[in-house]
Amino acid sequence: MKILENKTITDVPYFKAIGIHCGVKKKRKDLCIIYSEKKSVAAGTFTTNKVKAAPVILNMENIKSFNTQAIVVNSGNANACTGDEGLNNAYTMATTAADCLGLSPEEVLIASTGIIGVPLPMNIIIPGIKKACDSLSYTGGESAAEAIMTTDTFTKKITVEIEIDGKNILISGISKGSGMIHPNMATMLSFVVSDVNISKEMLSKALKDSVEDSYNMISVDGDTSTNDMVIAMANGSAQNSLIDNENDDFIKFKEALDFVNKELAKMIAMDGEGATKLIEVSLYNAKTVKDAKLCAKSVISSSLVKSAFFGSDANWGRILCALGYSDGEFYPEKIDIFFKNDVGTVQLVENGKGLCFNEELAKDILDQKNINITIDLKDGEYSATAWGCDLTYDYVKINGSYRS
Amino acid sequence: MKILENKTITDVPYFKAIGIHCGVKKKRKDLCIIYSEKKSVAAGTFTTNKVKAAPVILNMENIKSFNTQAIVVNSGNANACTGDEGLNNAYTMATTAADCLGLSPEEVLIASTGIIGVPLPMNIIIPGIKKACDSLSYTGGESAAEAIMTTDTFTKKITVEIEIDGKNILISGISKGSGMIHPNMATMLSFVVSDVNISKEMLSKALKDSVEDSYNMISVDGDTSTNDMVIAMANGSAQNSLIDNENDDFIKFKEALDFVNKELAKMIAMDGEGATKLIEVSLYNAKTVKDAKLCAKSVISSSLVKSAFFGSDANWGRILCALGYSDGEFYPEKIDIFFKNDVGTVQLVENGKGLCFNEELAKDILDQKNINITIDLKDGEYSATAWGCDLTYDYVKINGSYRS
Repeated sequence: MKILENKTITDVPYFKAIGIHCGVKKKRKDLCIIYSEKKSVAAGTFTTNKVKAAPVILNMENIKSFNTQAIVVNSGNANACTGDEGLNNAYTMATTAADCLGLSPEEVLIASTGIIGVPLPMNIIIPGIKKACDSLSYTGGESAAEAIMTTDTFTKKITVEIEIDGKNILISGISKGSGMIHPNMATMLSFVVSDVNISKEMLSKALKDSVEDSYNMISVDGDTSTNDMVIAMANGSAQNSLIDNENDDFIKFKEALDFVNKELAKMIAMDGEGATKLIEVSLYNAKTVKDAKLCAKSVISSSLVKSAFFGSDANWGRILCALGYSDGEFYPEKIDIFFKNDVGTVQLVENGKGLCFNEELAKDILDQKNINITIDLKDGEYSATAWGCDLTYDYVKINGSYRS
Repeated sequence: MKILENKTITDVPYFKAIGIHCGVKKKRKDLCIIYSEKKSVAAGTFTTNKVKAAPVILNMENIKSFNTQAIVVNSGNANACTGDEGLNNAYTMATTAADCLGLSPEEVLIASTGIIGVPLPMNIIIPGIKKACDSLSYTGGESAAEAIMTTDTFTKKITVEIEIDGKNILISGISKGSGMIHPNMATMLSFVVSDVNISKEMLSKALKDSVEDSYNMISVDGDTSTNDMVIAMANGSAQNSLIDNENDDFIKFKEALDFVNKELAKMIAMDGEGATKLIEVSLYNAKTVKDAKLCAKSVISSSLVKSAFFGSDANWGRILCALGYSDGEFYPEKIDIFFKNDVGTVQLVENGKGLCFNEELAKDILDQKNINITIDLKDGEYSATAWGCDLTYDYVKINGSYRS
């Protein structure tokens, strides 16, 4: 697998995209279309929140279509808690794009992100979609990545190349979201496109598993948005022999997709609202995968742990405590805990008891922008990794006056 | 029921107490003993964290004793994650107090709160306990409330009087804890004493139910401490006829105990680390009690909701979102949401959709120190109330450098 720097979604054959400013936001780009010129299969995972935004409800239907050629995204307004009017508006967005692109409405997916409860300004959105359809280009990937942002401070994108069946295949994704939590106002959206030839069923399987180990392992605080979604599209233009079962080609594709999704998830965590540090929790030797994930997620989601990392305070008691109230199973008296990064490694806990550690080295490690917490449960052979960021003054500042 | 201002635990007949400075902390009081001169039954609820501090492990045994006459509490050091040495130290604390007071070790309960993973300085604690036993007094209640504090900014106490069986009965409690979360470094401790004549079994039942609706309904973030505990003691000196079943006297006592525990819980929430506002979530008309509690707790625990209240931002979308990711059952399209307090009432959501509300009035309500969020699910007849506070810059500041 090769990482292709400076490539983006429109470098994948037969994918066009564009991001424009239509007027939902004051100045910044706020409307994006991703379009495959060829027929394409799609897979999606959607928020588990019981309060689902209108575009999520629409997509959960449209994703059943065998062909999906376009995704329309607006930022600045989430079209959530907007009742029947909201659903009608989402449907109108799909039909408007479908008309422009010569597709059926069910071949179009919709995403919205921004403020909740305010009706979409359709007088702006409809002409915006028409303009965007006219502007679609093979170089529009970067503008598309910009147009899906809300409180994000940088665009998130990655492209990799793999070889399958003698063909060079590209997988490229863009994301938005501020990773401290999956905030309802800064929804987590991710769109991954590929020219791989794969069945809809296998694409769905690959995406579902991949999301579990990537976007679902970034720090959450439980604040799962009404609008979260991840969509993958594959148009088969690479002409590898169709992947329609879990063969070696599938495994190769899945590995690359995992990498793309994990990298995008880490970028979201790193761009956490107000965040200054990326924290990675590596959990080893749990009895089951479930225990490993529950433990890793509990640590990365603790506000006390996050605050301590902001202050470069080697407060390992909070890590043990967060493990203790997780639903994961383990023996407290077996746990080892380490902090690691380029600066070095320091062990803080052995067999559940605090060690006399080098405080200066710990402080040096914690002062860096990337920190790994390694936790060894010594109770089995399953592992999990979770990502998050520190909790800072600026998080409170951003979220104390979002609507203002 | 009468609230007795300016009364405290040592106003309950035959209860003595004291808080002293023994040297675990630099200057502030750090050791407390609560003592019943008469034989007394006790009940306790302890942290559900799998990582339990040594005093919790000790108490879970000692609480089985039919007689419990003393509670020894130190602040500044949690005696958690300290292995066998920690357990021995907790046991030594109990035997030291028992020797001084002429009790068996199992008639003494122990609590510790403060930093995790550091061995207790027993050379200071043992003489401290001896000195405290010698200093026990009928006016020591206030000093006891001070000595259990860590990051608390005020002492938490309440006393009520009820009449049962023609006797005036006092119930009085002290608490410590900073309510943003149940922080592992600022453990939630609560001690309630009464002169009521009640069986151990009935006291246990009353306490267990009462804790569910009070301390377990304050904002948590999931950060349940390794040291949390609530202890109730009743020495029967009021000489009412023994409460040994769920009769009217039990119900009367239970109601007063509920009030005491809820008031103490609210004080903990109000004293949340860095908090400026007390937020109450009143959840009405859920299908089950469990749904009501899950929904109320999800809203009060959301960092996004807490941040919005700090900024006086009427961001009701975050409340709907927090309901949506709770495990409670409801119909999104039925929900009504109101903000209320002395300033007035404003309805923000009707049947799951945002209303055009008076932003100025909403801002005025949110600028106050006490705010009620009323949520009507219109789906049943069960209710729940939860309490919490706003998330502020100071929370991050306090928790970013706790050990420094």
